[in-house]
Amino acid sequence: MLVVMRSDATPDQVGRVVEAIRGQNLTPHVLPGATRTAIGMTGNTAAVDKGLFEVLAGVDEAIRVTKPYKLASREMHRDDTAFPVAGVEVGPRTFAVVAGPCSVENEGMVFKTAEFLLSQGVKLLRAGAFKPRTSPYAFQGMGVEGLQILKKVREKTGIGVVTELMDTEYADAVEEAADVIQIGTRNMQNFALLKRVGKCRKPVLLKRGMSATLEEWLMAAEYVLAGGNYQVILCERGVRTFADHSRNTLDLSVVPPAKALSHLPVFVDPSHGTGKRAFVPAMALAGLAAGADGLMVEVHPDPDKALSDGPQTVDFPTFAALMGRVRELAGVLGRAV
Amino acid sequence: MLVVMRSDATPDQVGRVVEAIRGQNLTPHVLPGATRTAIGMTGNTAAVDKGLFEVLAGVDEAIRVTKPYKLASREMHRDDTAFPVAGVEVGPRTFAVVAGPCSVENEGMVFKTAEFLLSQGVKLLRAGAFKPRTSPYAFQGMGVEGLQILKKVREKTGIGVVTELMDTEYADAVEEAADVIQIGTRNMQNFALLKRVGKCRKPVLLKRGMSATLEEWLMAAEYVLAGGNYQVILCERGVRTFADHSRNTLDLSVVPPAKALSHLPVFVDPSHGTGKRAFVPAMALAGLAAGADGLMVEVHPDPDKALSDGPQTVDFPTFAALMGRVRELAGVLGRAV
Amino acid sequence: MLVVMRSDATPDQVGRVVEAIRGQNLTPHVLPGATRTAIGMTGNTAAVDKGLFEVLAGVDEAIRVTKPYKLASREMHRDDTAFPVAGVEVGPRTFAVVAGPCSVENEGMVFKTAEFLLSQGVKLLRAGAFKPRTSPYAFQGMGVEGLQILKKVREKTGIGVVTELMDTEYADAVEEAADVIQIGTRNMQNFALLKRVGKCRKPVLLKRGMSATLEEWLMAAEYVLAGGNYQVILCERGVRTFADHSRNTLDLSVVPPAKALSHLPVFVDPSHGTGKRAFVPAMALAGLAAGADGLMVEVHPDPDKALSDGPQTVDFPTFAALMGRVRELAGVLGRAV
Amino acid sequence: MLVVMRSDATPDQVGRVVEAIRGQNLTPHVLPGATRTAIGMTGNTAAVDKGLFEVLAGVDEAIRVTKPYKLASREMHRDDTAFPVAGVEVGPRTFAVVAGPCSVENEGMVFKTAEFLLSQGVKLLRAGAFKPRTSPYAFQGMGVEGLQILKKVREKTGIGVVTELMDTEYADAVEEAADVIQIGTRNMQNFALLKRVGKCRKPVLLKRGMSATLEEWLMAAEYVLAGGNYQVILCERGVRTFADHSRNTLDLSVVPPAKALSHLPVFVDPSHGTGKRAFVPAMALAGLAAGADGLMVEVHPDPDKALSDGPQTVDFPTFAALMGRVRELAGVLGRAV
Repeated sequence: MLVVMRSDATPDQVGRVVEAIRGQNLTPHVLPGATRTAIGMTGNTAAVDKGLFEVLAGVDEAIRVTKPYKLASREMHRDDTAFPVAGVEVGPRTFAVVAGPCSVENEGMVFKTAEFLLSQGVKLLRAGAFKPRTSPYAFQGMGVEGLQILKKVREKTGIGVVTELMDTEYADAVEEAADVIQIGTRNMQNFALLKRVGKCRKPVLLKRGMSATLEEWLMAAEYVLAGGNYQVILCERGVRTFADHSRNTLDLSVVPPAKALSHLPVFVDPSHGTGKRAFVPAMALAGLAAGADGLMVEVHPDPDKALSDGPQTVDFPTFAALMGRVRELAGVLGRAV
Repeated sequence: MLVVMRSDATPDQVGRVVEAIRGQNLTPHVLPGATRTAIGMTGNTAAVDKGLFEVLAGVDEAIRVTKPYKLASREMHRDDTAFPVAGVEVGPRTFAVVAGPCSVENEGMVFKTAEFLLSQGVKLLRAGAFKPRTSPYAFQGMGVEGLQILKKVREKTGIGVVTELMDTEYADAVEEAADVIQIGTRNMQNFALLKRVGKCRKPVLLKRGMSATLEEWLMAAEYVLAGGNYQVILCERGVRTFADHSRNTLDLSVVPPAKALSHLPVFVDPSHGTGKRAFVPAMALAGLAAGADGLMVEVHPDPDKALSDGPQTVDFPTFAALMGRVRELAGVLGRAV
Repeated sequence: MLVVMRSDATPDQVGRVVEAIRGQNLTPHVLPGATRTAIGMTGNTAAVDKGLFEVLAGVDEAIRVTKPYKLASREMHRDDTAFPVAGVEVGPRTFAVVAGPCSVENEGMVFKTAEFLLSQGVKLLRAGAFKPRTSPYAFQGMGVEGLQILKKVREKTGIGVVTELMDTEYADAVEEAADVIQIGTRNMQNFALLKRVGKCRKPVLLKRGMSATLEEWLMAAEYVLAGGNYQVILCERGVRTFADHSRNTLDLSVVPPAKALSHLPVFVDPSHGTGKRAFVPAMALAGLAAGADGLMVEVHPDPDKALSDGPQTVDFPTFAALMGRVRELAGVLGRAV
Repeated sequence: MLVVMRSDATPDQVGRVVEAIRGQNLTPHVLPGATRTAIGMTGNTAAVDKGLFEVLAGVDEAIRVTKPYKLASREMHRDDTAFPVAGVEVGPRTFAVVAGPCSVENEGMVFKTAEFLLSQGVKLLRAGAFKPRTSPYAFQGMGVEGLQILKKVREKTGIGVVTELMDTEYADAVEEAADVIQIGTRNMQNFALLKRVGKCRKPVLLKRGMSATLEEWLMAAEYVLAGGNYQVILCERGVRTFADHSRNTLDLSVVPPAKALSHLPVFVDPSHGTGKRAFVPAMALAGLAAGADGLMVEVHPDPDKALSDGPQTVDFPTFAALMGRVRELAGVLGRAV
């Protein structure tokens, strides 16, 4: 942190900043300049609010010069993180594809989807047993029964399972049924939940909050990493903007800086990102070209009858065609699918 | 819901829409028009996704014609909701003031603040025992110990307590210590938590999510109301926009439509809304003038030493001066403080 | 500007920053610190892009420490700017009200509105002769003929006229007809237009761009001031956000910082800010309470038949009632109306 | 337009809506339904504000059922528009690349850049003679002298020129020097300028406004088309959001719906879209994969010394490497570069 004084700041005002820094158990370092004085500080500044200094008399600005996240940052971990999930490598050499229905609706459709995906070479199935729904009157997911279905499908077909955890109460049950535990966009800053999955031994797929900055997203990952779980996948799924041509604005431009600042793998979800099935394939390819390490996409045997997210869900033929394009592009970009 | 067909839609396409409506257990009503056909439907459409129809061939648009929230809507409950909180009336005839530090830091400062507030005629204290913090390395609140302090202060001074619940695990403990249970902005769509406080018998103050639409906010309230807890206060605290002159953009323009659509009381939090203490008094008065039913503001005996949110926290003299202006303006606007 | 080096920056990298600063005709000042080096610079840094330094090797961040605007800033001009407009004082001691129809529709309705306004003690009329319309097929305003009507109404009634200039071509004509030249939100960064009105001798009302930061808004004002026209009024009229409960999000929270950073008067336009007439009065009062120096509001003899902006336009009785509340509140807040 | 009445609307209220429709010179069509009445209308509704009906008693909602743009819409023009620019085909079969410095700085650097681009097979040069700058104190471009340089470079090298027009005053001069006239983001709704270039005979590249919806962007194009100039290229260049990891948020998700709604070619500008040169190549490829028809990118012989936009400008080797990837990807996607 660097506190920049105004050009007309008095020595007394500088003194009070020095004192305020000491009050935070940090060591101040006064740096007099040609026109103004700057004051550096050393110690653990990660948790210090820069606003604390900015309200002091004579202060022009306080600037954070170290990143507030540690374990998630590339400074701490130069190389890209890679790890296997149910036999699929996630990391910089591959483009991992996760697909499936928004929610577990019944055993038959999950089996059918899993078998279709395996036939396409896709080894990770997404399907929610617990569903976060805007309306209390909407289908809330099959819950524990849905987890049983996922376990059965995993056993019989060998497909890996990605499913969402919404509440600490079901953490054990979801961890048992899942190969990857998904944290949804509405829970990106549900800190109790983040701390809980920090203790899980399964990888965590952390969706970006609808209005989260990159720093906040990495800080949410830091909660999981700080708990001892180092297998975190970041997943961009669209943010809230004024634009009304899509359900959310898929922010592909976050992919390059996320990968520059962090060593964690980054996935892209064009289904939630667009909200419209017609636009999913183009944005899936764009995510791959932008440098994402994986894709999460909603597919359903009969999307028009899906119990949730039907409008943004593609059918089997569309998905198969998409996978063909994905393989072609991934080949050019040097990634294995 | 009304499904508007394209002008070139075929009878066959109309037929498939009719079928899709029946597939949702609703009754279709075909309305042929001069240039195009519209298809209405009756039944419980609250939970039906309009996108389901919009993806069908020949459909131009589906329009929701009833609100998806029921209990929160003014259609169901014409009169403004009013209820007492620790002896303070919350509702359209008053302007309720809730004030206090961001977090419980120790017993002494909470007592000191409570006594100051009571001396100002303010009977509701805010202070967090559990704190949602962006960084896992930042002060996370005193937790259960903080709740004990709040209970002690409430017993000794008689002040009402507003404090945040972040996790279902502590619902009983927070309900016992609080007169109003606060749900924070990051948890506005933590549905497990909303369902849990729907079972509480204490009023709930529901902060608007950082990027929540008015409809989503009212739907979150609906979760609480649907659980049987009818005492919900909505609290605007700033939303995420491109603007960088304030920490958040305090959206006072949501107050009039919130009150038009819903009977629930609406509060305003200018501390989080601006993030800068110098701007808090002006925005508090603006909230009152915009029609808010109450104010939530951060005040601390020594804001520069606050463990959290110091930059947006006002000191005692500033707060006392603000209360003077609030009383003057409330008088003109016909509200008792 | 202060360039903060990374802690592992080499002397060579510091050297290249020093050179880059000299390359911009500025003088570098190296400030070695405990853990890292910062490099200040003196000279005219207002127009220097900080990104120029941030891309250099070893640089962590470049921080602008002086404001890029000069004439608009309070540093250059401590006291609030005040000036008369058609006999009405604009500045910190008053709350100036500008009202009228969106557009000049015909002579009769402008006269009728002017007479009504004068009967309410309102001495400034707004009405557009040139209208910026999203659609090329929509009514584009009466143009030069509309200016003639405004001149006639001004002569006969003595009311002051505020009207929009959209194109340099009509600058002379608008200046002649107007007491205040309005620059609309879509033209806030139409620099040719800003330079042109910098040469006018009539005050300029500069609406904030729909997605303009406070700094960009003040920089736009700086264009006018730098041209020699020191009578600029800033007018907040709502910004673009994800929120859908109002046409725009009226950002009242910009009023206090705008007045803190600049000496220029700040007005609020709740008509465009909300887009819905039912919410205009509440937001007008909120603007006054937030510290605005004036109000711009759309009023029409028969809003439902207005050729433009009808939905956000109030009728005469609503306006009269609003003026009553404005006077009461302004009295409490120490402003003359 | 369809006006949906509330379920409790009276026949009298329906009558007043019918009257209001007639008042707009349209023909009303009453469509009684099971639970509510809807009222359609025929005639030219493109310029009618739906808010006009929404404020009437008994009205629940008015829904626009035809697009307000005509000439820009695919309904009017099924096939993709394609046209040649300086020997380069722009349209669905190609991926057109426009590159060059932000601004014309001197003759030497423009020549050097043009020659480099031609050596890379790039036949369209971008360079601004007139520069829109946030600060009045920043370099404003070389103006007419810059146009002379562009003409000379075009003559000598044969490269096509894309350059910005900011003011109607210079329309003739820019049209003479340019093969494509660029309208910048700040002028997307400068309607005087749009009308003027509607009369030009050179293609227009229309950048999306920083906070323009897709509909507003197409309506801006409609202004040009309605003037008789049918050669319009849409160019996405990033929008304003809360995100702070990039200068703007490049909204690639607008590409598929823009191409679905309109027949006009769509380009992508990752330089302004990201604001950081390190992220330009990845986003350029992502734009191509998203379905864009062309790319506009800033390249400079020595970006660190560029007079404007240096931080987002790539150097020659980076550009050459990018072109290699572009060709590979375009091959897979079936486009010629």
